Amino acid sequence: MAEGERVTIPARKGKAAIVRKGQSVRVINIHGSQVVDTWAFSMRDPREFMSMEHTRTHLLKLFPKRGDSLVTNRRRPILTLVEDTSPGIHDTVLAACDRYRYEQLGCKGHHDSCTDNLASALGELGMAPPETPSPLNLFMNIPVAADGSLSFEPAVSKPGDYVTLRAEMDCVVAFSACPQDIVPINGLACTPMDAQFQIVS
Amino acid sequence: MAEGERVTIPARKGKAAIVRKGQSVRVINIHGSQVVDTWAFSMRDPREFMSMEHTRTHLLKLFPKRGDSLVTNRRRPILTLVEDTSPGIHDTVLAACDRYRYEQLGCKGHHDSCTDNLASALGELGMAPPETPSPLNLFMNIPVAADGSLSFEPAVSKPGDYVTLRAEMDCVVAFSACPQDIVPINGLACTPMDAQFQIVS
Repeated sequence: MAEGERVTIPARKGKAAIVRKGQSVRVINIHGSQVVDTWAFSMRDPREFMSMEHTRTHLLKLFPKRGDSLVTNRRRPILTLVEDTSPGIHDTVLAACDRYRYEQLGCKGHHDSCTDNLASALGELGMAPPETPSPLNLFMNIPVAADGSLSFEPAVSKPGDYVTLRAEMDCVVAFSACPQDIVPINGLACTPMDAQFQIVS
Repeated sequence: MAEGERVTIPARKGKAAIVRKGQSVRVINIHGSQVVDTWAFSMRDPREFMSMEHTRTHLLKLFPKRGDSLVTNRRRPILTLVEDTSPGIHDTVLAACDRYRYEQLGCKGHHDSCTDNLASALGELGMAPPETPSPLNLFMNIPVAADGSLSFEPAVSKPGDYVTLRAEMDCVVAFSACPQDIVPINGLACTPMDAQFQIVS
């Protein structure tokens, strides 16, 4: 896709793009309330990918902030969070949603999921994920209490807020506009919305 | 191995065993200071395994306590923490150590790692891990501060403390007596020690 072009991540669906080392990808929360699950895989070897558990060890913190690099399962920087106009509330501790999650939440029949969206987004580029890494959940508001308990809260970002991630190696970045419509992470209306991304220099 | 037999997890090394549904496995911190990385894989399909990111979503907490079930990447209970004589400090947020970690810590040449130990422990049973899931780090003391920052602290368990995990499906459970000897998670002496496990009814 052309540099600067705004690409829609349709509500409930996924989208992926190649981002070259030194380029950045900007993820725009056009409605403000939408969680965007994010993954990155090395172009050279997709078995090397952004890993939340390795990133937490690297940063010695649960949640990355502006200036922090996210590292792969081989502990090399793959993306750096260089801009963040949102309040900086993102999540690294929860798994991508999947069909098992929606079955447990009582959904009957098909329900889109971030896990399936990762596979279909990479599939559009002729790739398959080697596994489903735990995602960087941009704009997801999961407060951690002093006793380690967690809660699902609505995103606190504003319409138009964005995060810019600089690629530290050639990589495929995948996004899912999370289809969660049972718990209120995508706003109290529980209505998944479009998001956008844009590759910038 | 015979039920009740105490099996050594040698310092810096891994060991695995089959645990049938309804049996339990007791992990004994014989020296008190040793972190034991723990994994569980379904016997029926090892691509289904205990997942920390799915468990955190299931429990809505970072750290499991007595009575809590740990779930797989298909969100089914695989182990339940039924006994814990230690202070209950365990970790779910950090990755298993690996050769990249020790290279970054300045080690030259070979250094044992929990990632390699998982592979060799399963290899003794004729299996290979489909991936390296983020482990349940028993006895590992990684305090989470109010701002989400983490620190590597010595284990606070006492010699002989144990955790008992009941199998909720037939599974292969793997352990690594973590070989970390640079940061003081295995005690201020930074000396990995043996641990033990025992299958009990």
